[in-house]
Amino acid sequence: LNSKLPHVGTTVFTVMSQLAQEYNAINLSQGFPDYDADPALFDLNEKAMKAGKNQYAAMPGLPALRERIAAKTRDLYGVGYNPESEITVTAGGTQALFTAIAAVVVPGDEVIIFEPAYDSYAPTVRLFGGLVKPYELEGPDFRIDWDMVKKLFTAQTRMIIINTPQNPTGTTLSEADMQELIRLTRDTDVIILSDEVYEHLVYDGRQHLSVSLYPELRERSFIVYSFGKLLHATGWKIGYCLAPESLMAAFRKIHQFNVFSVNTPMQHAIHAYLEEPQHYLALPSFFQEKRDLFRNMMQQTKFTLLPCQGSYFQCVSYQDISKEPDTEMAMRMVKDFGVACIPVSSFYTRKTEQRILRFCFAKRTETLEQAVNQLSKIH
Amino acid sequence: LNSKLPHVGTTVFTVMSQLAQEYNAINLSQGFPDYDADPALFDLNEKAMKAGKNQYAAMPGLPALRERIAAKTRDLYGVGYNPESEITVTAGGTQALFTAIAAVVVPGDEVIIFEPAYDSYAPTVRLFGGLVKPYELEGPDFRIDWDMVKKLFTAQTRMIIINTPQNPTGTTLSEADMQELIRLTRDTDVIILSDEVYEHLVYDGRQHLSVSLYPELRERSFIVYSFGKLLHATGWKIGYCLAPESLMAAFRKIHQFNVFSVNTPMQHAIHAYLEEPQHYLALPSFFQEKRDLFRNMMQQTKFTLLPCQGSYFQCVSYQDISKEPDTEMAMRMVKDFGVACIPVSSFYTRKTEQRILRFCFAKRTETLEQAVNQLSKIH
Ligand SMILES: CSCCC(=O)C(=O)O
Ligand SMILES: CSCCC(=O)C(=O)O
Repeated sequence: LNSKLPHVGTTVFTVMSQLAQEYNAINLSQGFPDYDADPALFDLNEKAMKAGKNQYAAMPGLPALRERIAAKTRDLYGVGYNPESEITVTAGGTQALFTAIAAVVVPGDEVIIFEPAYDSYAPTVRLFGGLVKPYELEGPDFRIDWDMVKKLFTAQTRMIIINTPQNPTGTTLSEADMQELIRLTRDTDVIILSDEVYEHLVYDGRQHLSVSLYPELRERSFIVYSFGKLLHATGWKIGYCLAPESLMAAFRKIHQFNVFSVNTPMQHAIHAYLEEPQHYLALPSFFQEKRDLFRNMMQQTKFTLLPCQGSYFQCVSYQDISKEPDTEMAMRMVKDFGVACIPVSSFYTRKTEQRILRFCFAKRTETLEQAVNQLSKIH
Repeated sequence: LNSKLPHVGTTVFTVMSQLAQEYNAINLSQGFPDYDADPALFDLNEKAMKAGKNQYAAMPGLPALRERIAAKTRDLYGVGYNPESEITVTAGGTQALFTAIAAVVVPGDEVIIFEPAYDSYAPTVRLFGGLVKPYELEGPDFRIDWDMVKKLFTAQTRMIIINTPQNPTGTTLSEADMQELIRLTRDTDVIILSDEVYEHLVYDGRQHLSVSLYPELRERSFIVYSFGKLLHATGWKIGYCLAPESLMAAFRKIHQFNVFSVNTPMQHAIHAYLEEPQHYLALPSFFQEKRDLFRNMMQQTKFTLLPCQGSYFQCVSYQDISKEPDTEMAMRMVKDFGVACIPVSSFYTRKTEQRILRFCFAKRTETLEQAVNQLSKIH
């Protein structure tokens, strides 16, 4: 069988997590916490199971959970999404991204992607016959020059994928960016796929700018969120997608044949847990503490910190240490210094030489301390 | 947005389950138990959560669970699948079917489907540009005439989807069928997608004939299984796919960008639970009791029973009651007699008039008794 994705290997997250295990290294590569979710959540899940909530949920998601999502969206962004027709619970954020792309992209369509980007976007676009038009952002700031984006637009442009806060760069889109996006897409039928899985992880008093805040963007957008990130339980694999009714109808037609429905007891548990909005309102300061700790400690090393406005991730450069490409540097670090990270070059579709590494700081203080201790030995 | 599946509505299972709720009818439509899974399973899940098993599982599935699946497959079918490279845990059987089709079908490929068929096959094939070549089987026996299948084969035939025991017909493929399938696919590069989610639900002392039993089939087959059915927990949404390494490599390339990985704590729970093979070895007699009960009681009604060799489902015809098409009959039954079932015409891609209804008998004795009591009022 000839693969339909011949140029794709195993996702870098799997590769690096495996290497971390193999070399018994501290794993700051794949984005997941090494502390645990709230035990109250486990009890709620147990309760749902024991109450017999173990059969198929409704295809678009448990109605009560969709109501809760609508309330959360209203509270955070002042926007009403209709739980009946505009909210669908998915088997994780990645699955929501996949289904949104599946619903839209037909052979020949062009899709604009800002790179470095989460590594599922481009292969999924290609799987459906789409053409990836990457805009390669440059560190240390990874700012978007919207005139450059404009140049990527053609009559075939069907979708633009944005990600704020962005993985792996930790950048966030500004009000000016959003206005440019509005201007650029106005009078087109371009659809926006907005990956907002790190919505709660924004720092230094920033507000997350969701596309849902902008009526002109909202009407053309799929927005993807992740309960895994919200709950510190990335292995629960539940997320959701928001979109106006006409887009969501197309999304659900595929969703129903892709996963059909999502884990029932966990949907009940999450619904009950989110009765308390503090559970997500507390996240920015919780993560900012980790970011600050990691950044402060990293100042003592020879690595150079890039800005970090949001997300699980801190990027660093290492011009004072070595001139190696980042894939080699990352390999050397996991083998010789016992710390796994992700080389940022893996977030580009075109081979580019990069000298930037991504660390996940969603870890316990001891883990971060030990990691930095080992990283400080690299000269 | 123009849907890529313009002719597809909401899946009939969702429609009928909603109608059942609306009319407060007994729901024998969608296939799921109304009794509960083993509480021991809930405890194992709780234990996994409390032991901190809440972050991303390995992309192809928890290694220990894949080992367990390999052992189960060896015990049941005498076949060795390599957990490293030939087994992938999925977000349910439906998701495994979707990903297998996604891995194989390119625009212009023809895919043979035996109808009546589970309603995800055809739309998924079409989503990837494939052409559905349906073979419409006829009741009451729904037997396959392999000369007819042969006539459907062309140079474009890329895949053939089989389902044994078959949903909705309750038929099983025989040794003669398997030999015909071997003969037909020999010297071709046709890939088989074998939906075996009802492997444990075979009656009257039958053995389930998995394609894995036949080396010539196995080497060209994706086989799909469902823990939801095995565990009486359809809402847990975990299944798995077996395939030889070259097929599985293509499958995983897509899986990693579709759902990436599957619910971690539940994978741990299922792994521990299946240490006891009795948990699945007991299933045939458990379900045969339900089938026999339902069939015996239905003899007292004006409905005519079709054969049922396997699966959750009993089909019936109703020529002694009415000449209406089955969609109208099913509507009348849910509204006027308080029992929901599925009209078998919804399992065909081409509009056909059918007079066959499908009932799910994976229900408590009281439920089946009450349902038949209401059905006996239909003359
Ligand atoms: C789905 S695996 C990766 C988790 C993640 O978002 C990341 O590490 O970038
Ligand atoms: C995924 S919903 C349907 C369950 C089932 O297999 C059926 O009712 O046929």
